Amino acid sequence: MSKKVLIIGGVAGGASTAARLRRLDETLEIIIFERGEYISYANCGLPYYIGDVIKERDALLLQTPEAMMAKFNIDVRVNHEVLSIQREVKEVTVKNGKTGEEYREAYDTLLIATGSSPIKPPIPGIDGPGIYTLWTVPDTDRIKQFVREQKPKKAAIIGGGFIGLEMAENLHAAGCQVTVIEMQNQVMAPMDYEMAQLVHENMRMNHVRLELGDGVKEFRQKEGATTILLQSGKTVEADIVILSIGIKPNSELARKSGLTLNAKGGIVVDEFLKTSDPSIYAVGDVIEVEEYVSKNRTMIPLAGPANKQARICADNIAKEYGLLAGKPEKYNGTQGTSIAQVFDLTAAATGVNEKTLTSWGKELNRDYYIAIINQKSHAGYYPGATPLTLKLIFNQEGKIFGAQIVGQDGVDKRIDTIATTLRLGGTVHDLAELELAYAPPYSSAKDPVNMLGFVAENILSGLVSIVGWNELENLAQSGSEDYIILDVGEDLERMAFSIPNSCHIPLGQLRKRYQELDKEKLIIPYCAIGVRAYNAARILMNLGFKNVKIFPGGTTFYKSVF
Amino acid sequence: MSKKVLIIGGVAGGASTAARLRRLDETLEIIIFERGEYISYANCGLPYYIGDVIKERDALLLQTPEAMMAKFNIDVRVNHEVLSIQREVKEVTVKNGKTGEEYREAYDTLLIATGSSPIKPPIPGIDGPGIYTLWTVPDTDRIKQFVREQKPKKAAIIGGGFIGLEMAENLHAAGCQVTVIEMQNQVMAPMDYEMAQLVHENMRMNHVRLELGDGVKEFRQKEGATTILLQSGKTVEADIVILSIGIKPNSELARKSGLTLNAKGGIVVDEFLKTSDPSIYAVGDVIEVEEYVSKNRTMIPLAGPANKQARICADNIAKEYGLLAGKPEKYNGTQGTSIAQVFDLTAAATGVNEKTLTSWGKELNRDYYIAIINQKSHAGYYPGATPLTLKLIFNQEGKIFGAQIVGQDGVDKRIDTIATTLRLGGTVHDLAELELAYAPPYSSAKDPVNMLGFVAENILSGLVSIVGWNELENLAQSGSEDYIILDVGEDLERMAFSIPNSCHIPLGQLRKRYQELDKEKLIIPYCAIGVRAYNAARILMNLGFKNVKIFPGGTTFYKSVF
Ligand SMILES: Cc1cc2nc3c(=O)[nH]c(=O)nc-3n(C[C@H](O)[C@H](O)[C@H](O)COP(=O)(O)OP(=O)(O)OC[C@H]3O[C@@H](n4cnc5c(N)ncnc54)[C@H](O)[C@@H]3O)c2cc1C
Ligand SMILES: Cc1cc2nc3c(=O)[nH]c(=O)nc-3n(C[C@H](O)[C@H](O)[C@H](O)COP(=O)(O)OP(=O)(O)OC[C@H]3O[C@@H](n4cnc5c(N)ncnc54)[C@H](O)[C@@H]3O)c2cc1C
Ligand SMILES: CC(C)(COP(=O)(O)OP(=O)(O)OC[C@H]1O[C@@H](n2cnc3c(N)ncnc32)[C@H](O)[C@@H]1OP(=O)(O)O)[C@@H](O)C(=O)NCCC(=O)NCCS
Ligand SMILES: CC(C)(COP(=O)(O)OP(=O)(O)OC[C@H]1O[C@@H](n2cnc3c(N)ncnc32)[C@H](O)[C@@H]1OP(=O)(O)O)[C@@H](O)C(=O)NCCC(=O)NCCS
Repeated sequence: MSKKVLIIGGVAGGASTAARLRRLDETLEIIIFERGEYISYANCGLPYYIGDVIKERDALLLQTPEAMMAKFNIDVRVNHEVLSIQREVKEVTVKNGKTGEEYREAYDTLLIATGSSPIKPPIPGIDGPGIYTLWTVPDTDRIKQFVREQKPKKAAIIGGGFIGLEMAENLHAAGCQVTVIEMQNQVMAPMDYEMAQLVHENMRMNHVRLELGDGVKEFRQKEGATTILLQSGKTVEADIVILSIGIKPNSELARKSGLTLNAKGGIVVDEFLKTSDPSIYAVGDVIEVEEYVSKNRTMIPLAGPANKQARICADNIAKEYGLLAGKPEKYNGTQGTSIAQVFDLTAAATGVNEKTLTSWGKELNRDYYIAIINQKSHAGYYPGATPLTLKLIFNQEGKIFGAQIVGQDGVDKRIDTIATTLRLGGTVHDLAELELAYAPPYSSAKDPVNMLGFVAENILSGLVSIVGWNELENLAQSGSEDYIILDVGEDLERMAFSIPNSCHIPLGQLRKRYQELDKEKLIIPYCAIGVRAYNAARILMNLGFKNVKIFPGGTTFYKSVF
Repeated sequence: MSKKVLIIGGVAGGASTAARLRRLDETLEIIIFERGEYISYANCGLPYYIGDVIKERDALLLQTPEAMMAKFNIDVRVNHEVLSIQREVKEVTVKNGKTGEEYREAYDTLLIATGSSPIKPPIPGIDGPGIYTLWTVPDTDRIKQFVREQKPKKAAIIGGGFIGLEMAENLHAAGCQVTVIEMQNQVMAPMDYEMAQLVHENMRMNHVRLELGDGVKEFRQKEGATTILLQSGKTVEADIVILSIGIKPNSELARKSGLTLNAKGGIVVDEFLKTSDPSIYAVGDVIEVEEYVSKNRTMIPLAGPANKQARICADNIAKEYGLLAGKPEKYNGTQGTSIAQVFDLTAAATGVNEKTLTSWGKELNRDYYIAIINQKSHAGYYPGATPLTLKLIFNQEGKIFGAQIVGQDGVDKRIDTIATTLRLGGTVHDLAELELAYAPPYSSAKDPVNMLGFVAENILSGLVSIVGWNELENLAQSGSEDYIILDVGEDLERMAFSIPNSCHIPLGQLRKRYQELDKEKLIIPYCAIGVRAYNAARILMNLGFKNVKIFPGGTTFYKSVF
């Protein structure tokens, strides 16, 4: 008799597993239960529909139950919530939301792909009108309707994660004056502070008010608007509030049925995506994954991983039933490659960031090293090139821990080549060697990623040292006189901007004038980009200066960070 | 005493080696001889300056001799041609082009970075007026002046390589009606025929006349214009002719001094970029390199490799003199990643193409396999997504031989992730696993490169077979009745287009109607993109059809290729 596979959750993980499974075998009975009204929708597109970037609501709905039946012979039951799992008898209890009817359905294999839901902490007033979370199509419809009908003038976003920032942008596009409130001192948690500063600067330029390092104490309703009281005592007025504080896995079902969960409620699966019950698999936001770089187990709720896990899971189910040849496939972990468009900028990250490394007790310039550079998105002489700031974190052996990139254009490409190198176990030496496509509209003969590799190699071989932005800040505050900030730019550049208390020797004069500098002091050369600073550092070091560190990323970066 | 390094050639390879070398050491005496008037210029930008995309001529000149002196303390002698190398005494003979004076200069280490030059075959009339090659700044000035003053209406480009095509585009932008004449049956040699067809189609849409598979017999001058007689007997009229037939290494100096050259005149170097003389290095277009995939030795004249070789060469020179610690560095070969913007399209390639594999006697579906897919540049529901056609060549073990991509947007990113995977020895399984940055403006949850990996895996595991475009053509011409071309698209799609002699069962009806198909025949499902064809193939194969092959890339691709 043909086997029966039940799937709980009909979006990224669930629908993709079902589709692949059907392709592998025609005889399996496959039923998807989805508690919501829609399956296979584009969660990631929802903010853009609110901002009218995506015009057609239908564009968000990639599949209907009818189409899934016709194309894949899959029985999709929307408005059907799975209430419990009876593992002993391999059954689930389902409630038909339309009729109220409850029934049981037996399975040979069960897949839990229930995703995650936004957190709503018990803040006074959080359930008031005009306060929304954005996670599903109905959420979107509600917000869209509110925006259309109420034409809110002021919007507050609670939480500066990527969904919060996408909403900031899209509500700004919809005509709102936007405030983002974030507990941490920065938005975009995957980025380190100094990189996030580039994003902050651009958001402020776009007239977004940022309340960082501050949390919500209370929401108060007043004449159809919300007054948000912050921990600091400040208040923010808003006609519409979007909560994007964080998410939790939808693992209640799994918990109740006694499956092993981690401390955050994530379902623990083995490398083959099987839960602690040999008949139950789980994929997507609801599971705990291995973080690819550290091999630590954690939660990384992203669509790409969910889709990939789904395909592997389908293969493993099919293999279990002898419907596909070969050994079960491993899911090799998630590296957390992520990207977001935030006003004029794109911010992207992959792997582990510096904050995480320091939280593990790792020390800069001992356990890990950092390269930060500023490069053009493509050849500078070809029109339209814009600056990219790239940060690479690596160790003495050249192993890559992670990278972060902020810029207007070409960010996605560079994070992808680094993510690929990281995935394949490549080192900074490989970054230096990558042969990437070059013609003037696309890149430079030395792609920014190659350049990052060069700089990292130079750091490791002692050709250059970099002063951290916080090191510089500490120096400035220490009142020490043992260091010299050296501007090696041209006169005209210096007239436009200079770092306070810096002295000035243009690079072209350095060989003649280096004796003006005290060899005993720490010399910190800088310029607009960082390349002349590096060349200056090399001259000084070759002339016997022992303590030279460049300020990476140049003056643009300096201005954003400080 | 400090060592003396002489460098012949002051552009990509030469200037970059000099700059790095100076950063490694202050004491070396470094002299660059450049026979032209300019150093460090953007060769790759020249076509765009002619088309007025790059407005400022100065933008092309990245460094001047004065700046190189000021910043790098490098003695740059422009208008100085090296006439010969006296290896026995380690000297070169130099001619000062301004004064006519000849002199000798001694070296400890010599670097040959003389690049390459365009070929001018002995075709009658090839030296006539209005016939140009484009390689240097003066070449560019001449063409630019001609265009400005003569306002040519008709342009002919001889040779459909990437420089030829860039010139086609830029002369088109400058108002010319353009004809491209190419001996092969396709432009863009790095691409295979069916991929080049996408480029041909777009060029024709842009009113470029293509004369493929035809060569020039003679150039005749008539009333200030050129009549080009082709081998076929056709003629092409042109007010301006650009020759971009091919290039040859500038290795005359090396040959005369007895250095080892290959059959094509390329200087043979070891893995450390040293020539057959232990005091002479060579980098850039003038050298023979190891092709990364096959390990065959060949010539690959590109700016990225030239720049990377330069850095390695500088390090090896410095290491030889004990100015830098460590073992000499290897240059690990060139994989030929290349890209060009051609009208509305970008075409890119990396690694080895199918033509090359077949020229080595390799056989499709035995020695290598092919996946061709059609995917959107980013999530289809987010505005502005455009189609990409991707071709991947790989073997039974999943090893990647090469890839080619054509599309409007996002081509560079995808060729770069594949080039990175190839470089790091990754397989098609790695492509499937890559965790690339996804948000709707940038990609899909399954990036086109992941998708290419999926399809390749499916081919290797026998889940799907692909019919080659030439196989289909052969079938059609054979008059065989043993195959069925099956349109699985919707009725509306079929009204708009169908492959001749195809039959039609929409995917959603296939499970009910598959008995209309003869199980003994080869079934070739197709649809607009290829995804439904694949799903149809899986249904049929699961229902016992033994011989099913999909037409990859869908109807758009079909229309371009045939
Ligand atoms: C606004 C927004 C923007 C996003 N943008 C991006 C982005 O740009 N890039 C990116 O990588 N990721 C993005 N994500 C995250 C991405 O959508 C998720 O990681 C992905 O959808 C997870 O897939 P999943 O299958 O685990 O869960 P989901 O896709 O959320 O599907 C889970 C489904 O299970 C159903 N379900 C839960 N419990 C039950 C039950 N008991 N019975 C029946 N059904 C149940 C739910 O109703 C839900 O439909 C975004 C998410 C949101 C909400
Ligand atoms: C129009 C054009 C577009 C291009 N576009 C691209 C592109 O988009 N992407 C890409 O990767 N590559 C591109 N290239 C190729 C790229 O420019 C070359 O691969 C690269 O410049 C090679 O570097 P090189 O140092 O070997 O030679 P070159 O940069 O050519 O420098 C060699 C120099 O040596 C000098 N020289 C030669 N003989 C002597 C002598 N005897 N004495 C003194 N000096 C001498 C020459 O005058 C020349 O200036 C393009 C080239 C051209 C011409
Ligand atoms: C709609 C949905 C059910 C489609 O599932 P799917 O059929 O697996 O996915 P796609 O349509 O992308 O097709 C991919 C398949 O086609 C194959 N394919 C793609 N192009 C092909 C071609 N030209 N030739 C042959 N096969 C091709 C791939 O190999 C893959 O098959 P495989 O998994 O068996 O290897 C599922 O992706 C979904 O629900 N998505 C929306 C939810 C979501 O992901 N949300 C979060 C992001 S917004
Ligand atoms: C102009 C030219 C002489 C510059 O040479 P260069 O100084 O090596 O190159 P760049 O200005 O790109 O700088 C790269 C150096 O800066 C370093 N660098 C870049 N950004 C940095 C930063 N923010 N901090 C520290 N170092 C940095 C790199 O590591 C590299 O140094 P390394 O080689 O010692 O590792 C040479 O590239 C040239 O002639 N180019 C034009 C010709 C050409 O390439 N034509 C073909 C393509 S159009």
